[in-house]
Amino acid sequence: MRQAGRYLPQYRKVREKTTFLNLCKTPELAAQVTLQPIDLLKVDAAIIFSDILMVPEAMGLTLTLNEKEGPRLFPTIKDSSGVKRLKIPKPEKAYDFLGKAMGLVRKNLNGSTPLIGFAGSPWTLMAYMVEGRGSRDWCGVKRMIYGEPKKAHQLLSKLADAVTDSLNFQIESGAQALQIFDSWGGILGPKEFEEFSLAYVKRVITGLKRQGAPVIFFAKGSGAQLEKIVKCGAQVISLDWTVDLAWASQKTKGKVALQGNLDPCILYCSPQRIRAAVKDTLNKARNSSGYIFNLGHGILPDTPPEHAKFLVECVKKESEK
Amino acid sequence: MRQAGRYLPQYRKVREKTTFLNLCKTPELAAQVTLQPIDLLKVDAAIIFSDILMVPEAMGLTLTLNEKEGPRLFPTIKDSSGVKRLKIPKPEKAYDFLGKAMGLVRKNLNGSTPLIGFAGSPWTLMAYMVEGRGSRDWCGVKRMIYGEPKKAHQLLSKLADAVTDSLNFQIESGAQALQIFDSWGGILGPKEFEEFSLAYVKRVITGLKRQGAPVIFFAKGSGAQLEKIVKCGAQVISLDWTVDLAWASQKTKGKVALQGNLDPCILYCSPQRIRAAVKDTLNKARNSSGYIFNLGHGILPDTPPEHAKFLVECVKKESEK
Repeated sequence: MRQAGRYLPQYRKVREKTTFLNLCKTPELAAQVTLQPIDLLKVDAAIIFSDILMVPEAMGLTLTLNEKEGPRLFPTIKDSSGVKRLKIPKPEKAYDFLGKAMGLVRKNLNGSTPLIGFAGSPWTLMAYMVEGRGSRDWCGVKRMIYGEPKKAHQLLSKLADAVTDSLNFQIESGAQALQIFDSWGGILGPKEFEEFSLAYVKRVITGLKRQGAPVIFFAKGSGAQLEKIVKCGAQVISLDWTVDLAWASQKTKGKVALQGNLDPCILYCSPQRIRAAVKDTLNKARNSSGYIFNLGHGILPDTPPEHAKFLVECVKKESEK
Repeated sequence: MRQAGRYLPQYRKVREKTTFLNLCKTPELAAQVTLQPIDLLKVDAAIIFSDILMVPEAMGLTLTLNEKEGPRLFPTIKDSSGVKRLKIPKPEKAYDFLGKAMGLVRKNLNGSTPLIGFAGSPWTLMAYMVEGRGSRDWCGVKRMIYGEPKKAHQLLSKLADAVTDSLNFQIESGAQALQIFDSWGGILGPKEFEEFSLAYVKRVITGLKRQGAPVIFFAKGSGAQLEKIVKCGAQVISLDWTVDLAWASQKTKGKVALQGNLDPCILYCSPQRIRAAVKDTLNKARNSSGYIFNLGHGILPDTPPEHAKFLVECVKKESEK
């Protein structure tokens, strides 16, 4: 999950001098904030500082990111001509900044800590590209899948290619694991989730030249679809906090490893409460086929950094037991 | 589900002259808009036009409702003194307007169509009362349940009493069925859902003097918890569109009836697409122990009214088959 960000004063200091997009696109700065949680929190992996909407931007849409309003993409995709206009970007050109940032991070880490690359799922990117922004009901993109499924599949197909290319480029640039974020699969019914989200995640994973790098699939809000998700080709399934981790461990045993699950809001609480939650989480994951401790979503902006640090210490201590 | 509203020109005409709150609190107008979907769409039941936040308002908070910003409640509940200050309202006084509106609706319907009363679940009301408004992450209310569970239980306990009283008053005022909306149970983990949401829904239902009126429990976003939900005491469980209705029918067979499930976004589509969705829904509910056709959430403001009308006709026609 996102572990660099506004909750860290050291991040805010870097961010003060530039925009979010410039931060992503300046390799030295992106590398610097990627490394902050390693130094400050002692987490076991770095995740490259970037944004899932870099792919739609590289495909030809204009992206603006504003902390108050959230991301905006335009022009929104309304019809087949909008889909046709989208480019499949050449990764080494489109994501040059990302490749350079990853190189700098790998060099700095010098083999001590692995680096994770990531992308949004085709469905999640499509949702933003059709709506133009985050939405409460996501009516525009649902109107398309219900009313014009062919158009939706055209768009998803193009997105699957672009996402695959982006992830393969990240592997070439030094990523040692990949995470695919399906942030908005949870707004779909089970049939639509399978057809419009999961099918394209499978297609992306099939297209990866992984070179041994494991793939983590984060299926936010789709815990009830776990049996289908397990078959997507990912080595690790990352879960939000609405899923019972003990149940998920049982369901996925012998099939995939698990990750995540702890509600980020736990980090507002006292060290005692955080420790209890860590113990409970580790205990529930006991019967899984491997478990990577993580939050169930990105860290929240008003999280006290010392609580995040305590969490990491606590996980290391408790998991040794 | 909410079936009166902005998508109806006839509603907008009434609403133009007054505020949303005044509309709720003027029995003649509330009755008028309650009856509109009966006349215009020919639905099989009326649901009283009101708002779940009437209960927190009657308990002493100030409520404002603005279509752009959504509802606001203040002062927000921060500590035990905030909880203590809350009144348990005398329903006949606090909801006098509601009782009168229900009387007018019953008189007008004259036995032809049943009337449904409703309330928010204690957890959903608590979420708004702690946050003061709708929220994306609901961090404030989660901070309370994780960090100060005793305080949360004090508040929920008081809310359960107030909600029970409000529903019993609605029965006395002519409600022939009751619906409890747990709009925000889905943001909780399974353990927290049981402890902070479902337990208080059970308590409310236990306290009802139903006089034969069935209780419908709408558990938005909590489909994965269906096995526990079935035991809450409600006669009907209402589902959103993220649940597989065929699976739910099987799970609840012999226990409770089902309601809902169709994604309101389907109403943007063509009559052919709407008909296909209706057939699919009825087919999936075939093995349930009773099924009430409904949407999986309230009707969206930009729904074409003629599509809503077509849906009702189509449901009646297809369910006869």
